[in-house]
Amino acid sequence: MTTTRRSDWVERLSQLYTAVVADVLDRLGYRNQILREDIRPLFPEAKIAGYALTVHVVPAAEIAPAEPYKGELAAVDALQKDDVMVVSHCSGSFWGELLSTAARYRGCRGVVIDGFTRDTQKIIGMGFPVFCRGIHCADSLGRLDVTGHNLPIVCGDVAVMPGDLILADYDGVVVVPSSVAEKTLEAAEEKVRGENLVRQKLAEGMSATEAFKRYGIL
Amino acid sequence: MTTTRRSDWVERLSQLYTAVVADVLDRLGYRNQILREDIRPLFPEAKIAGYALTVHVVPAAEIAPAEPYKGELAAVDALQKDDVMVVSHCSGSFWGELLSTAARYRGCRGVVIDGFTRDTQKIIGMGFPVFCRGIHCADSLGRLDVTGHNLPIVCGDVAVMPGDLILADYDGVVVVPSSVAEKTLEAAEEKVRGENLVRQKLAEGMSATEAFKRYGIL
Amino acid sequence: MTTTRRSDWVERLSQLYTAVVADVLDRLGYRNQILREDIRPLFPEAKIAGYALTVHVVPAAEIAPAEPYKGELAAVDALQKDDVMVVSHCSGSFWGELLSTAARYRGCRGVVIDGFTRDTQKIIGMGFPVFCRGIHCADSLGRLDVTGHNLPIVCGDVAVMPGDLILADYDGVVVVPSSVAEKTLEAAEEKVRGENLVRQKLAEGMSATEAFKRYGIL
Amino acid sequence: MTTTRRSDWVERLSQLYTAVVADVLDRLGYRNQILREDIRPLFPEAKIAGYALTVHVVPAAEIAPAEPYKGELAAVDALQKDDVMVVSHCSGSFWGELLSTAARYRGCRGVVIDGFTRDTQKIIGMGFPVFCRGIHCADSLGRLDVTGHNLPIVCGDVAVMPGDLILADYDGVVVVPSSVAEKTLEAAEEKVRGENLVRQKLAEGMSATEAFKRYGIL
Amino acid sequence: MTTTRRSDWVERLSQLYTAVVADVLDRLGYRNQILREDIRPLFPEAKIAGYALTVHVVPAAEIAPAEPYKGELAAVDALQKDDVMVVSHCSGSFWGELLSTAARYRGCRGVVIDGFTRDTQKIIGMGFPVFCRGIHCADSLGRLDVTGHNLPIVCGDVAVMPGDLILADYDGVVVVPSSVAEKTLEAAEEKVRGENLVRQKLAEGMSATEAFKRYGIL
Amino acid sequence: MTTTRRSDWVERLSQLYTAVVADVLDRLGYRNQILREDIRPLFPEAKIAGYALTVHVVPAAEIAPAEPYKGELAAVDALQKDDVMVVSHCSGSFWGELLSTAARYRGCRGVVIDGFTRDTQKIIGMGFPVFCRGIHCADSLGRLDVTGHNLPIVCGDVAVMPGDLILADYDGVVVVPSSVAEKTLEAAEEKVRGENLVRQKLAEGMSATEAFKRYGIL
Repeated sequence: MTTTRRSDWVERLSQLYTAVVADVLDRLGYRNQILREDIRPLFPEAKIAGYALTVHVVPAAEIAPAEPYKGELAAVDALQKDDVMVVSHCSGSFWGELLSTAARYRGCRGVVIDGFTRDTQKIIGMGFPVFCRGIHCADSLGRLDVTGHNLPIVCGDVAVMPGDLILADYDGVVVVPSSVAEKTLEAAEEKVRGENLVRQKLAEGMSATEAFKRYGIL
Repeated sequence: MTTTRRSDWVERLSQLYTAVVADVLDRLGYRNQILREDIRPLFPEAKIAGYALTVHVVPAAEIAPAEPYKGELAAVDALQKDDVMVVSHCSGSFWGELLSTAARYRGCRGVVIDGFTRDTQKIIGMGFPVFCRGIHCADSLGRLDVTGHNLPIVCGDVAVMPGDLILADYDGVVVVPSSVAEKTLEAAEEKVRGENLVRQKLAEGMSATEAFKRYGIL
Repeated sequence: MTTTRRSDWVERLSQLYTAVVADVLDRLGYRNQILREDIRPLFPEAKIAGYALTVHVVPAAEIAPAEPYKGELAAVDALQKDDVMVVSHCSGSFWGELLSTAARYRGCRGVVIDGFTRDTQKIIGMGFPVFCRGIHCADSLGRLDVTGHNLPIVCGDVAVMPGDLILADYDGVVVVPSSVAEKTLEAAEEKVRGENLVRQKLAEGMSATEAFKRYGIL
Repeated sequence: MTTTRRSDWVERLSQLYTAVVADVLDRLGYRNQILREDIRPLFPEAKIAGYALTVHVVPAAEIAPAEPYKGELAAVDALQKDDVMVVSHCSGSFWGELLSTAARYRGCRGVVIDGFTRDTQKIIGMGFPVFCRGIHCADSLGRLDVTGHNLPIVCGDVAVMPGDLILADYDGVVVVPSSVAEKTLEAAEEKVRGENLVRQKLAEGMSATEAFKRYGIL
Repeated sequence: MTTTRRSDWVERLSQLYTAVVADVLDRLGYRNQILREDIRPLFPEAKIAGYALTVHVVPAAEIAPAEPYKGELAAVDALQKDDVMVVSHCSGSFWGELLSTAARYRGCRGVVIDGFTRDTQKIIGMGFPVFCRGIHCADSLGRLDVTGHNLPIVCGDVAVMPGDLILADYDGVVVVPSSVAEKTLEAAEEKVRGENLVRQKLAEGMSATEAFKRYGIL
Repeated sequence: MTTTRRSDWVERLSQLYTAVVADVLDRLGYRNQILREDIRPLFPEAKIAGYALTVHVVPAAEIAPAEPYKGELAAVDALQKDDVMVVSHCSGSFWGELLSTAARYRGCRGVVIDGFTRDTQKIIGMGFPVFCRGIHCADSLGRLDVTGHNLPIVCGDVAVMPGDLILADYDGVVVVPSSVAEKTLEAAEEKVRGENLVRQKLAEGMSATEAFKRYGIL
């Protein structure tokens, strides 16, 4: 599956915010692109824009596998500039400080996990953006296996395909299918321009009903 | 349903805190007045005291309703000085920055939602107190409908009637029925005065058993 | 049940962190020693190391018990230097500011509750480390009863025996059975020494696969 | 709010089944009309078709209300021929044998509760169709209050308006908005006719892909 | 802890049903005596009346314990005539066919588990009443440990003391504290006598409101 | 990935039951092979033994896909004699009567879904064994997409590989990895032979402790 990576998309996406991108996807008929609300950033300023490198995780069958961490390490080593690692639902701790160090070196822009992380204070100290379901100190060894990367996965109850655009900020995580990326970016950039005017009108006392009727923005 | 709004209640309530008000309601036989614990403030200093303007929300039947946001805007425009908007259980994001701007202009003291908000960083930046179940960037349009405001609702597994007094701080959200407001405020003000002495005795080493036996406060 | 309390254990444990201790317990065959991930600290710097004083809690049968708070106060008054109070699953608020004051006076190093606390801002202000499932302003009176302390309990889906060593930090809470304390401490101290080298290698661009193959640490 | 009650609708609806009605509503753009899957019949043959009489329930504020069961009894006494009582989310047991007896006398065709029932074996013995979230022997007194009937409610995460058509069978519960009742019935009756042919073809070995391509039915 | 075992209590209790006993306990101020609704009988006719022999279960620390099943077997061997085994919250399968055989031999009247069972079809075939949270084929070995029996426990979110009276039928499981057993039985026997009349009146068309006003029974 | 299909395995597996197979897998170090307990048969006699044909499902991105049901139909048409279809976690209804008809024609022995089915009464009437999380009448169209079959999946929180042996009965669903199939079958057959003796001894009054000590079986 080859997906387009236009040179300006990541830069433009990083200027937007998730609420406006989610609204535009709604209007385009993509109404299930926002990850479940329990996937949260480790720190308030965390923001990610980039291309999904997906990782498919399953519960481990054996406590002591023959080749520990094999699939997880292969996924980290496959990361390229502007990638966002997106990890399917798992119960233990998938991530940590050492992997953050390795990922950042490869140009990875952040990690989104429908699971847990550890070494949390050190990752926050690095300023490396991780969005996850929670924090847990249990190792992944003997708990999780990676069956492969860059496969279709489900993360936060949303289908994520390799190469989808990911935008994550304090309001959540949005998945933009590659096929509608340009259309989404354009419409979102337009919508942002309209909001400043409405905000000013409401602060001056215009009724919300009136403001929406006049500008069509809420 | 007309409810009393005594001029000093909101001011007196805002001097108290939820734990002491909850204790007093327990003693008066109102043992289910605290919202479920997953309704939390967006920032630690958030505090609200005021009169409930209730909003009844249902899942939307249609993705593209004829009159978008109609009931939600009507509820916002109905807000008066010292009101607290209290919103029934819903699955998407009910609130945002522009509505916060409109609500604050009308004198609304804060919002309590058994649901989600977005534009979260901007709302925190405004210092506008919002208590909610979480953060999600999905629009309410085509997900939620407001069937009316100032009706009896359930929020956080507690019945809330229009005009009930609401107190919200870092320990949670308490609903004070209008009919016992004066009695509750008086008893709570009295209890606060007793706690300073006990705190001092415990810090000096009095056993907890002894302190409770002597002062009846814990 | 008498358990060993070696004089250096608490000091050495407090130099470690939960992720490394959890890894060592895994290797020793203790794979269920980490509390459920929804038990979190009230503030990021909270850290506890000490011996478990366990408290067994049940839902109250009567709203107005003959001897209010009796078992809870007895447990607090039984606390000794270097103890950590560990409380079994409960639905209301078990803890508060006054009890924190009493516990600290007795040398208690912190509290871990599979339940809720209140007076949260004051406890944070004291810097007293509390790990809990959440915050709720409801009193324990008429909601919870303590049937005894220093009994075997379940907290966060982990069995905790009186005198077990407890380590809690931002990554979670780990229970070290008394019988393997010395062995666990030694192995954890050794593992910490190896991690600095790996971190440096990854930051210099060594692949994660290569680093794990060479040093066996992740 | 007056809604249409066409004389033939209930009879025609009772000849259909929920899966085919749900499919038709999907095609008409009503994609959230099926109650949550944990609302199940008390016995496999239970089937209901009729008009919703909605009941709005809230948690009780007081253990010993002045007028016990008042709103609940009023709702039962308001039932008319061909009504289905539909009850909003509640935590205790809303229904029982005596109320079933009273409801049946009034021509009520069944009850759908986002909550619990008791006297379950007796209700099954009567053959009175009740769909509910579960079985619990706790009385509603002091646990639930009815604030009114024939108001908009949420039941099983679906908005239900007074007078909506309800169809319930072993596959679930579907809500047909009054405004699209005729259109839904016609399309569902048509779809049923096509399924017999497809079933026969698949039993004779036609591939599922081929059958769907040829007949457009699955 | 010695508790009374009056010779007629079990026989009288077995003539009653859970809904009426629960109502009486409510009136006596015991409002939290009904187990959580997900604890259900394996077959509809299952009914138990007897004295609680409580079992305290914790998650296993080690996969291969030195003395497998030790506490579980000791609890089964301690069963006496008219006992009901009541087991605290656990995640795996606590019970099976062989233990049912052993328990029945000792005169045990049934088992209530806030956990799972296996060998389910064989237990149903024996007609041995088991109430549990579900069915799961995983062994308890290396998953659960019994720390002791005849201790205070929590089962289905209700405190159960050794010797409490247990009544379980298709409507749920009720715990009658030993201290109010006689009072509860008397009031329940009285209430049952009143219900026959009301049932008849409602079937003859008396309004539910009128019936409750006249007889005070619902 | 080619997996072995020995001619006698399915026949021998179908003579066993899940509890004994699960015990044997435990002893071999495979402790996470039992599906979550909420995956239940549609009727008590349902039993399946066969080879897993896995199906990977994701939430649909678009309500009206270009090729409806494409991946689902392809998976059904790929079924061979002695296959069991095993479907990953999904929220809507994946299965129905027409697909059961097509699957049975191809020799499929049953279906295991971490999701829902519909047309339930008709499937029960066919006697076709389906194990699932529940019953829901919503179509999969526009709710689910199949990204492929015979890929590694997670079902009921267990990793399932194409060609794994599946055994499902009233006690649950067990996954036997192909690599340990012969070993597991032999040990399970041996264990079954020992149980008859123990059952007889317990029925004659031998203590459970004694029986386990003597025969090592529980």
